[in-house]
This record gives sequence, C-alpha cells and structure tokens, in this order.
Amino acid sequence: MGLIAPGALGKHVLVEYHGCDAATLDDRARLREVLLEAVARSGARIITDVFHQFSPQGVTGVVVIAESHVSIHTWPEHGYAAVDIFSCSDRMDTAVVVEGVRAGLGSASVQVRELARGQLDEKLPDVAPPRPPFAAL
Amino acid sequence: MGLIAPGALGKHVLVEYHGCDAATLDDRARLREVLLEAVARSGARIITDVFHQFSPQGVTGVVVIAESHVSIHTWPEHGYAAVDIFSCSDRMDTAVVVEGVRAGLGSASVQVRELARGQLDEKLPDVAPPRPPFAAL
Repeated sequence: MGLIAPGALGKHVLVEYHGCDAATLDDRARLREVLLEAVARSGARIITDVFHQFSPQGVTGVVVIAESHVSIHTWPEHGYAAVDIFSCSDRMDTAVVVEGVRAGLGSASVQVRELARGQLDEKLPDVAPPRPPFAAL
Repeated sequence: MGLIAPGALGKHVLVEYHGCDAATLDDRARLREVLLEAVARSGARIITDVFHQFSPQGVTGVVVIAESHVSIHTWPEHGYAAVDIFSCSDRMDTAVVVEGVRAGLGSASVQVRELARGQLDEKLPDVAPPRPPFAAL
C-alpha cells in the first residue's frame, strides 16, 4: 500500500474480503474487537465507534479516527465483508488494518483498491460549460 | 448514477466536492442537518449518526443506514469535502444524496466515481499460487 499521493489530501483503501468465517461475520462484539485492535495497531487515533447488528444477519461498523474512518459491512451468508479505510495521514499504516482484519475474519481472498481523495492539483474548470447560443424555448 | 452491478452486493459512490463554502465545512451542526436530510430524501433508512468537530478545523460525519453508510470529511481550509456513499439497495437513490450535499455545501465542482463492491461472480483463485519447484533456503 502506498503513501498518500502527491497533491492529494487523503487515500481511500477499499478492501474485499471473500471466503470469511461466517460466524465471525455475524458477531458484532467480535468484529468490533477485530477492527478496534487493527486500527489501534495501525497508528491511528480512535475517536469513537458504532457497530450495529442487523436482523436476520450482518453487521455494520464504523470507527471514526482522527485520520478519517474505517468501516466494515458484512454478509455472513456470502462469507463476504467490505472494508474501507480512509486516511489523511501517512502516520497511519493502512496495511496493518488490511492484514489485521484479514486474520480476524479468516479471509481466504483479499482484494485491495487504493484511490486518491482530494486531489487539489487537478485543474478545475475555470470557465462556464458550453451553452447553446440561444436559450431553449 | 447506475444501479448496483449484476452479481455485486453493493455500490460505493466516492464524491469530491471542491469550491465549497468554508464556513459550512466547519459547522458540525449544519453538516449534520445537510447529510441527514439528503440521506432521508434518498429513501435510505437511518440507524444512527456520529459527527465530530476537529480542532483547529474540519468535521467528520458518518450516517449509518440500513443500506450501509454515508460519510463526510471536510477540509475548510481547502474548500473541499470528501463524501462516500455505500449502498446495498437500489431502493436508495444515491444521486439524491450527491445533489443534496452539493447544494448544502455550495460546491462549485463535483466529481463522482462509482465502484461495485462484493462481486460474487468474480472468479476466485481455486488453486494455490505458483511456487518455485524447490523451497527457498
């Protein structure tokens, strides 16, 4: 996982965990432990968290951190969890979160996408968009 | 904005708002109003929310919804806000959130990326990765 891109304010790491332990994916308390431990070990500063158990199954959790957030949504029936890690500081090691969650979920397959957020150096349009020469009726 | 992709469990809409009103971006209570109203109008079901004011400036907010989550992180000093909308149901109209937040922030430039999450039909590796014929020493 790379550093925050030059000219960007943050990076957003989207992680797909397939082949996870279904019981863990439906265990709100355990998922909270896994996320909080992984986030703490990454160097991030935890501000608060909220974890919600859905019926009949599935959990959503969000950890708000000084560096932005980490979220998880689980589908126990598919052995799948979606995690996203938004960080605005390279003091946070997002790879530690990715690996800690992988281990905690027992995931057999991890796919990671990383996107820059807040690219301030991208040129924004400085003129109005083209308009037809006459107003439409 | 499209529907959830065939074979996927959800979609993740990442939105860059540049050229926003700086005072709004640093107003926790106002940002909460803007987000909650936009999310409610989108057809999503709100479960809970958390909004945190940073010092010297900036706000992080997360709205947990039955359909997954909506988050915002603001940089008043850059007139920039990052929003992400994760939805697992096409009953939620994510475009309503994008537009409601744009209006609320007075954003001059909106950039949207949309990604599929939880592609269950993507073929996962069913064999071990290639290994050298002899164990490394």
